[in-house]
Amino acid sequence: MSAEPPPASAAAEELTADLAPATQPTPSKKQLKKSARKAERAAQRQQQPIQQQPPPPGAEDPFAANYGDVPVEDTQSKAVTGLSWTEVRDLDAAAAAAARSVLVRGFAQEIRSLGRMAFVVLREGRSSVQCVLAAGAGAGVSAQMVAFAKSLTRESVVDVEGVVSFPKELLVGTTQQARIVEIQVRKIYCISRAIPTLPFNLEDAARSEAEFLKPGGQQFPRVGQDTRLNYRAFEIRTPTNQAVLRISTQVQRKSENFCGQKTLMRYIPQNFSVEQAKLHKQMAIVGGCRRVFEVGPVFRAETSRTHRHLCEFTGLDVEMEIKEHYFEVCDVVDGLFVSIFKHLAEKCKEELETINSQYPFEPLKYLEQTLRLTYEEGMQMLKEAGTEIEPMGDLNTEAEKKLGRLVKEKYGTDFFILHRYPSAVRPFYTMPCYDNPAYSNSFDVFLRGEEIISGAQRIHTPGMLAKRAEERGIEASTMSAYMESFSFGAPLHGGFGAGLERVVMLLCGLDSIRMVSMFPRDAHRLSP
Amino acid sequence: MSAEPPPASAAAEELTADLAPATQPTPSKKQLKKSARKAERAAQRQQQPIQQQPPPPGAEDPFAANYGDVPVEDTQSKAVTGLSWTEVRDLDAAAAAAARSVLVRGFAQEIRSLGRMAFVVLREGRSSVQCVLAAGAGAGVSAQMVAFAKSLTRESVVDVEGVVSFPKELLVGTTQQARIVEIQVRKIYCISRAIPTLPFNLEDAARSEAEFLKPGGQQFPRVGQDTRLNYRAFEIRTPTNQAVLRISTQVQRKSENFCGQKTLMRYIPQNFSVEQAKLHKQMAIVGGCRRVFEVGPVFRAETSRTHRHLCEFTGLDVEMEIKEHYFEVCDVVDGLFVSIFKHLAEKCKEELETINSQYPFEPLKYLEQTLRLTYEEGMQMLKEAGTEIEPMGDLNTEAEKKLGRLVKEKYGTDFFILHRYPSAVRPFYTMPCYDNPAYSNSFDVFLRGEEIISGAQRIHTPGMLAKRAEERGIEASTMSAYMESFSFGAPLHGGFGAGLERVVMLLCGLDSIRMVSMFPRDAHRLSP
Repeated sequence: MSAEPPPASAAAEELTADLAPATQPTPSKKQLKKSARKAERAAQRQQQPIQQQPPPPGAEDPFAANYGDVPVEDTQSKAVTGLSWTEVRDLDAAAAAAARSVLVRGFAQEIRSLGRMAFVVLREGRSSVQCVLAAGAGAGVSAQMVAFAKSLTRESVVDVEGVVSFPKELLVGTTQQARIVEIQVRKIYCISRAIPTLPFNLEDAARSEAEFLKPGGQQFPRVGQDTRLNYRAFEIRTPTNQAVLRISTQVQRKSENFCGQKTLMRYIPQNFSVEQAKLHKQMAIVGGCRRVFEVGPVFRAETSRTHRHLCEFTGLDVEMEIKEHYFEVCDVVDGLFVSIFKHLAEKCKEELETINSQYPFEPLKYLEQTLRLTYEEGMQMLKEAGTEIEPMGDLNTEAEKKLGRLVKEKYGTDFFILHRYPSAVRPFYTMPCYDNPAYSNSFDVFLRGEEIISGAQRIHTPGMLAKRAEERGIEASTMSAYMESFSFGAPLHGGFGAGLERVVMLLCGLDSIRMVSMFPRDAHRLSP
Repeated sequence: MSAEPPPASAAAEELTADLAPATQPTPSKKQLKKSARKAERAAQRQQQPIQQQPPPPGAEDPFAANYGDVPVEDTQSKAVTGLSWTEVRDLDAAAAAAARSVLVRGFAQEIRSLGRMAFVVLREGRSSVQCVLAAGAGAGVSAQMVAFAKSLTRESVVDVEGVVSFPKELLVGTTQQARIVEIQVRKIYCISRAIPTLPFNLEDAARSEAEFLKPGGQQFPRVGQDTRLNYRAFEIRTPTNQAVLRISTQVQRKSENFCGQKTLMRYIPQNFSVEQAKLHKQMAIVGGCRRVFEVGPVFRAETSRTHRHLCEFTGLDVEMEIKEHYFEVCDVVDGLFVSIFKHLAEKCKEELETINSQYPFEPLKYLEQTLRLTYEEGMQMLKEAGTEIEPMGDLNTEAEKKLGRLVKEKYGTDFFILHRYPSAVRPFYTMPCYDNPAYSNSFDVFLRGEEIISGAQRIHTPGMLAKRAEERGIEASTMSAYMESFSFGAPLHGGFGAGLERVVMLLCGLDSIRMVSMFPRDAHRLSP
């Protein structure tokens, strides 16, 4: 293989010398690069069949084939072996009782050494299991094999073949402890060796505030948000990140399934920008598509750096014919979100608990039939509580939060719809109210005191649309195809848009949207 | 209402004077704009309660409240009336036998006049029904009401209240004729009046080649692709367009459901470009996400204008851990596409027939277990058939088509996988074959002789990756976060990407990808 590194004779021990203490401060990027290069060279030398490594002095190892770094060529789709891997989450008491032989693959989350024994905690997804190697006759485990296990670096990808068993003592820090099983290792191979000095320790990135506040807790290093995001592909291995990503997936899937079941025709999207996408969706309705929706990336040149804005987010956008009232759109919002809340409570209980244990949050309160208040009613509530709002203006973040608290006190819900917004704060294509054009057939939706959705009936008559555009100083010629389309016979219609990262952030009670996006982008961050 | 047009006294007849003959050539944009403005003004004058219109000379109409143009304010979410609309597709013989009263809304596809009678064909989605008005005592239909119906413009949005009945004669040109029902109109209101001179007639846009070839068929105007795309929001009302969009939706939903069921974690996407998305997906695998997928818009600066390229398309991208072989990725492709084929055959029979009747195509042939040929085997087949290919090059479109024909003859399938492509024609991150680095662990997938998917095992070792990048002259520093991520312990992985518009185009046997995208974009088209 031309891509193969030349043979060399580095011992596994060479790597361990580089191992950083668990609590050292986060290394600089330069230090990291240097040690990465060093480790890379060492790893290249290592990625040879273990047989070629010199045995420890004075010992020929009859079990040499049962461990080692897997040579690169064996990772290049050499054969379909028919070997069967078991998922870590499927290791249970039944497997232990039957002393089942299994083959598992995972990240080496922890490597512990105890005399002639080694312990490797393997993690797969959000599950982990302790793998035990005890050197001694009978078990097929040699001292060299134990030494190899001890030489593994944290977060390396490792294959373990062994027998599921009940451990002698209760294990700490593995998810399979409830089922109280471990693996007695017979074979162990390293598929991909991690550099010894990782950007930070995953335990540190997974610690709750409560742990920091415990006696001795202040000694733990804190991993800052920028460091986390700089190494996002590494950071997302923590349980909370995995849980948040899974919840995001579930919210997205539930949205798609709900919309699909409501016979919303799927829109094949063109998302130059939020606004462009909205116009295209309206044109799809003019085109007779009746109900369209889209879940996909949206780009917005967002200059403000806040806890809840991103330049790129996952938009859920719905546009639909209505027969007579924008409440038909509110009904879809209502049904969709109540079904999402129920789905998560049912299907993502564990994930919510995982997040809650690192970042505690209040359980979500909502009503079966979502509360609808008019903007004026909302203003009145704020006024009575001492907050005066510019009557034809918009709510600022602080007023939103306060209104959220007032509504929760009075109605017992974290989720409500505020409708009949002043026309002045809505886009030109928003249909004004029939009885007062200073108000509009529009609504915002709030979750835990923050806005997550904007929606409205849209103007479908070309005359009114042109007039409204002109009043706002919008040059109709820049959107002539859009304006013209309404002259071909246009159904009454309305729609709404939500940013799913913000929805997930609030559902999980997180305080930053950057914890929800896989690779967040804002005015200050364009990588990784 | 400030947005209301001033009252005026135009009669409905004024509009009909503008009605273009059905077969006139497509008007110019300028003409269209002029007539649009004229119609707009007329429509504004019209959008007044019909009661305010002067009755025809010599006749007070006791039924004046039963028809007319709906005033704008009545379309502004004035009330939730509790009225219940029936779907056109639900009108059936049982409804006719029970003489059921219904309220339907649709586009006025056709307006016919016969003495004291008027016929309005209402279309909703891909269903349509004939609505009959016969002036005479007893039925509550006045001569003025019939005149109003005759004055409707094609493609206006119209509400009809009436009684479902069996027609006296067999109807032609409505989908509900199989169920042989029509509606005896009691009330008729125009919700949104279309301009009298539409960009083209939808029947012309819906005609098959066979119709043009029939005696007299050459008199029909042909609607060219550019005209269609200029008025895309109008053109997509044709049955074939509606069918294609519905099939697109189904392909997308089936892809998402299949991937979701296979426990592929959903990826929250950042799609700057095809390549960037691929790198991010690999990083998600490094981050322990195991299997990720995404269905969403992809942008590519595509300069070639071909029948199968767009600058924006809907990408289906999958990235997944593999245990040992890229065939595990092929297995997902195999399962996904066979399930899509079956789903469409079962759920979209009508839609496929609709498309087939305008643009005839061969039924798709596929095997339960998808055929896998090596690139070398494919080259050998071509060679034996007289086509010599540069052995380490790529297939051009012509060779692809020929290979598709040869495979279909020999194996009886339109769908197959070609694997072990030359490394030289694949991206730098493609894993080379273990036994010959000139070939790679990669594959393309073909449907009806055209490539729809590229996939491969990816390089997971940082050393090999850096070396390959260097060989290709790629500056590693431009993607340092990506390169670095593989040093944190990287699972073996592979993935694939498909463009769904191209998939749908080939499934439906269409000859242009522009018929599949809602608003196609290429180097020559940026609007609508």
